[in-house]
Amino acid sequence: MKNLRLPLFLLGSLGGLALAEDPAMSAADTAWMLTATGLVLLMTPALAFFYGGLVRSKNVLNTMMMSFSALGFVGVAWALLGYTLALSGEGNFIGDLRYALLSNVGLENKGAIASITIPHLLWMVFQGTFAIITAALVSGAIVERMRFPAFLLFITLWSLVVYAPIAKWVWGGGFLADLGAWDFAGGTVVHINAGIAALVAALVLGPRKDFGRQAILPHNVPFVLLGAAFLWLGWFGFNAGSAWAANATAGLALANTILAPAATLVVWSLLELSRTGRVTAVGLATAIVVGLVVITPAAAFVAPIYALAMGALGAFPSYFALLWRAKSGLDDSLDVFAAHGVAGMAGAVLTGVFAQESVNGLFNGLIGGNPAQVFVQAFAVLIAVVYSAGMTFLLLKLVGALIPLKALPKEEGLGMDVTQHGEEAYTSGEGAILVRSEAPRPSAQPKPVGGTD
Amino acid sequence: MKNLRLPLFLLGSLGGLALAEDPAMSAADTAWMLTATGLVLLMTPALAFFYGGLVRSKNVLNTMMMSFSALGFVGVAWALLGYTLALSGEGNFIGDLRYALLSNVGLENKGAIASITIPHLLWMVFQGTFAIITAALVSGAIVERMRFPAFLLFITLWSLVVYAPIAKWVWGGGFLADLGAWDFAGGTVVHINAGIAALVAALVLGPRKDFGRQAILPHNVPFVLLGAAFLWLGWFGFNAGSAWAANATAGLALANTILAPAATLVVWSLLELSRTGRVTAVGLATAIVVGLVVITPAAAFVAPIYALAMGALGAFPSYFALLWRAKSGLDDSLDVFAAHGVAGMAGAVLTGVFAQESVNGLFNGLIGGNPAQVFVQAFAVLIAVVYSAGMTFLLLKLVGALIPLKALPKEEGLGMDVTQHGEEAYTSGEGAILVRSEAPRPSAQPKPVGGTD
Amino acid sequence: MKNLRLPLFLLGSLGGLALAEDPAMSAADTAWMLTATGLVLLMTPALAFFYGGLVRSKNVLNTMMMSFSALGFVGVAWALLGYTLALSGEGNFIGDLRYALLSNVGLENKGAIASITIPHLLWMVFQGTFAIITAALVSGAIVERMRFPAFLLFITLWSLVVYAPIAKWVWGGGFLADLGAWDFAGGTVVHINAGIAALVAALVLGPRKDFGRQAILPHNVPFVLLGAAFLWLGWFGFNAGSAWAANATAGLALANTILAPAATLVVWSLLELSRTGRVTAVGLATAIVVGLVVITPAAAFVAPIYALAMGALGAFPSYFALLWRAKSGLDDSLDVFAAHGVAGMAGAVLTGVFAQESVNGLFNGLIGGNPAQVFVQAFAVLIAVVYSAGMTFLLLKLVGALIPLKALPKEEGLGMDVTQHGEEAYTSGEGAILVRSEAPRPSAQPKPVGGTD
Repeated sequence: MKNLRLPLFLLGSLGGLALAEDPAMSAADTAWMLTATGLVLLMTPALAFFYGGLVRSKNVLNTMMMSFSALGFVGVAWALLGYTLALSGEGNFIGDLRYALLSNVGLENKGAIASITIPHLLWMVFQGTFAIITAALVSGAIVERMRFPAFLLFITLWSLVVYAPIAKWVWGGGFLADLGAWDFAGGTVVHINAGIAALVAALVLGPRKDFGRQAILPHNVPFVLLGAAFLWLGWFGFNAGSAWAANATAGLALANTILAPAATLVVWSLLELSRTGRVTAVGLATAIVVGLVVITPAAAFVAPIYALAMGALGAFPSYFALLWRAKSGLDDSLDVFAAHGVAGMAGAVLTGVFAQESVNGLFNGLIGGNPAQVFVQAFAVLIAVVYSAGMTFLLLKLVGALIPLKALPKEEGLGMDVTQHGEEAYTSGEGAILVRSEAPRPSAQPKPVGGTD
Repeated sequence: MKNLRLPLFLLGSLGGLALAEDPAMSAADTAWMLTATGLVLLMTPALAFFYGGLVRSKNVLNTMMMSFSALGFVGVAWALLGYTLALSGEGNFIGDLRYALLSNVGLENKGAIASITIPHLLWMVFQGTFAIITAALVSGAIVERMRFPAFLLFITLWSLVVYAPIAKWVWGGGFLADLGAWDFAGGTVVHINAGIAALVAALVLGPRKDFGRQAILPHNVPFVLLGAAFLWLGWFGFNAGSAWAANATAGLALANTILAPAATLVVWSLLELSRTGRVTAVGLATAIVVGLVVITPAAAFVAPIYALAMGALGAFPSYFALLWRAKSGLDDSLDVFAAHGVAGMAGAVLTGVFAQESVNGLFNGLIGGNPAQVFVQAFAVLIAVVYSAGMTFLLLKLVGALIPLKALPKEEGLGMDVTQHGEEAYTSGEGAILVRSEAPRPSAQPKPVGGTD
Repeated sequence: MKNLRLPLFLLGSLGGLALAEDPAMSAADTAWMLTATGLVLLMTPALAFFYGGLVRSKNVLNTMMMSFSALGFVGVAWALLGYTLALSGEGNFIGDLRYALLSNVGLENKGAIASITIPHLLWMVFQGTFAIITAALVSGAIVERMRFPAFLLFITLWSLVVYAPIAKWVWGGGFLADLGAWDFAGGTVVHINAGIAALVAALVLGPRKDFGRQAILPHNVPFVLLGAAFLWLGWFGFNAGSAWAANATAGLALANTILAPAATLVVWSLLELSRTGRVTAVGLATAIVVGLVVITPAAAFVAPIYALAMGALGAFPSYFALLWRAKSGLDDSLDVFAAHGVAGMAGAVLTGVFAQESVNGLFNGLIGGNPAQVFVQAFAVLIAVVYSAGMTFLLLKLVGALIPLKALPKEEGLGMDVTQHGEEAYTSGEGAILVRSEAPRPSAQPKPVGGTD
């Protein structure tokens, strides 16, 4: 079994959606995957609002642009090189160059690593939206202090040297697939990977100058809730789209993607009520994300009642990781490690607990009488953690040797929006007339092209 | 005809999408229903922004969390118990327990009350999104004063003892279905029900301390427009998804779901222009919702030209109900009764006027020569009104006997965000450093878990 | 070849989705087109946020309502008259009245101008969402000064006398189709048309009183990013929905709709970095829109690698047009001409460069050995420019003769929200109690119906 991510051939038959051994193009599957691709793309702007609301108003544009820029820089890198490295060839560690510069990626119903029932091109961009959101997720650890050009260079390279190989190992028929580790929609490839990279980035960059010295509060909590809502919506594409078809597998994944975060939300609320007497909005938004992360590797592998259980259980490790982090000296500013890394690990292991062959047609976990699966899952997590941590560290050192990673304390004080982008997020709308010059000095506030006059 | 909500078998043939008598699983229908389920889920966060923008900034998080919490609490209650009560069994008044705790809800193409062409699980969560939004809608009447724990308990129970039975009567083959009342996508079950419950809740809770003493203005009207936009988008899932298939019925429902609110928007604008010389943004957003509510029971039952007529006519009762309410002593704070209750009743009755068997394949209304349908529709409305009002009253009295329903005037003055959740929606982002303790006193502002540091 | 916009019959076969010569209804195509219609409808509220964030806070509601009102006024005009004028009959210049008042528009799988595989009604509303967004786009040129009633009258008529005829010429089998000009999803009909109309409107209305006298800054840049994100999402419906089917054509269009703006975003960022040392958020949002506009006419006509090329090349003309406009005396307030007009023209011409029959099954551009196509494309652009400019001018003069077009300088100073709508977007939420009267004088601030009390 080389291809971990191909449950549809087996699962399709469960729901009466029998597929031929060499499936032809399916208009119905294409209909769903067009939608799913749009939904996963939407997750990155949603993340921009989730993260943007959590920072101070002087840094909101910088924070949001870290996500939005990934849509361009990682998107182009994926099309030109990342896709072929991640999802081509018979290698166990890295793809070949058969799809470099989008060559050989056409309208045929042939995926990079498997037969599919949708156009190859559509499958390529669907997979690309995963690379984009993963890179964007990392930014939460280093907001309010990383210089923007350094960030652009970092995530572009990171998507090629960290994301693409891990995707190859797990989804591209690589060595983790051979070991029998299962990750339906990206618990390991996306969330553990991003969470660990975030942890390393927070350590390499060091804390913000105000960290621990004054309270740093979210400047716009409704934006956080907006982000959480659209992350949830987008996650339907992420999880149910990972069936690559409009079949029963997708239906199961979608149902579980509603049930698990609902359970996390309830448990998290009760945890907060019992500890402090109040449920916070930021906590509620965080709970939604944690529940989504937990169910991601298991979305089409567990029965719905166990999706509820996973969501409920999954609340605990992240909740207490957040409490621990808040008291630590670690400035993982928006808690990417606790929300994505810890919940991703919990989800990967719980997948090994609750998976049932009677549901997924593929493999059993602990409750199906296969306790060894828990250890296989944990081993794959360990490999991803070690690689992601090591390579992220080396990459940040490399980028840091080329251009400075961190803003000056004075720039932090003024805010990243003004110092990195020459803009403010919120104004009265009126100001002194700007003197226009052909080539404004970088230190002057440039006229925003595309803005009003 | 037990099953009111199954026009697809008849309607399917109208558009050339013939379905076999015992339909098999359909990938195309599954593709649409995956999307539709996501869209209806989105309506609840959309409502959070609609309502959140209308309140004062000191209450916006509390208001939004009432909707967001429904995603968790009502979602879990639906999966464990509500679904089986609402949509199982042969009873006329309540379901049995065959699907309790999600037992017997799997990937088979068999709905609770009818054969369907999508996985049962997907159908279950699609129906669950309706229960969630209905409970969330009620909150608009009691914002800015209801204590949060009481609200959580109230809506969870309400979804089981008010929503589930009415859904059973109308959609689950219950006695209102037997009477020949028609409600395509939830005019009675969702909107009248929520509107009446809101009215009762406003009366039981009593007005806000500032009500009638000072002007209470929306704090962020763009959020109201944001909510209206995503309610509209989500309503495509709500109405066209209620065909449970990607057939001509769904196409008709979607077209009518564009046309009716467009007409309401035009008529409402002209009403405002003629009365005050100006069109307001809040009025425009309200008009969109009113038009959506009006067409909901009729979405796949009337010809598009009559959808325009229903949208245009439907503007009047809600418009004048809003004017009346604004002068009354009733603190239905965000006008849930006028927007959902009144428009829902108008829609239910107008469905009895404009339905045509030549369009829907099922039944005629007044213009089809069946004036009696108007009275059948009105009778079903009456039953829903009486039950919803009575049970909501009893339930609030019960919850109120257990825990206090209403915040103290001092808490209202400080705002619900700080007093109920220990948070503020908007800050400069900086504050005094918080002293951290293991177990913060409930009266102290807790550190928001998941927030920035 | 009368029908320019019917590549699906030819293209369908490329991806293995063979369609019969007289295609029957397809549930899969219907599934996708239900979604696509919702997505295109969403673009208009998205535009409201894009534009609303760019203006001053005293004008945000007025700006947003210009877009939202189009959903109603243009939507109703389209259903009653615009659709039949644009997309019926054998005429070369204008449709007949066979579909007026929605007569003969039913559930049959028969489009106005061609056989289709989805319900006629669904196709009608899908096309209607294009008319709505086109009219809304024009508003960006005249925000912060055009009186609201005049705007409502203007765009309603504009959709009938400017949009409908151009749609007929290009998509309805009119004379531009006969010439062999190609516009897959609306580069000419939507973007060039709106961009030119905006330019003319800015000239007819004249500049804002503060234009050139003080800096006019965006009041909420996160709203601009919100708008850009949902424009992108909606554009998947716009471009991939223009295949009218869930086939390989749609897959190609969707992939290109991700790749082109990604490339534009990268090039634009590098242009800003090289010119000013900083990337702005407003620039980034503008780049996304420019990339989307550029690829629109070519979405299913060019290979993905050329979509990247078109996105990259397309950045330049708009970037420099924006720089030029900022120094000019032209108050095209939100740069509709530069972003939509210029990028639309670039896209139309580049379609003539990069189209390949081996990809689209229909026609070659320059790189396919058919340099003449560049000139055919440019000629169609010229015709659209001349007609749109001339008719928009005449229409504004006509409307201006009936009611005043422009607010008084004093009203501009107070802001359009208060003077046109009697509302403010953002308040503390509290104010003095309003004296209610049955018929408030237009000069008094009316009680917003539907708001809080």
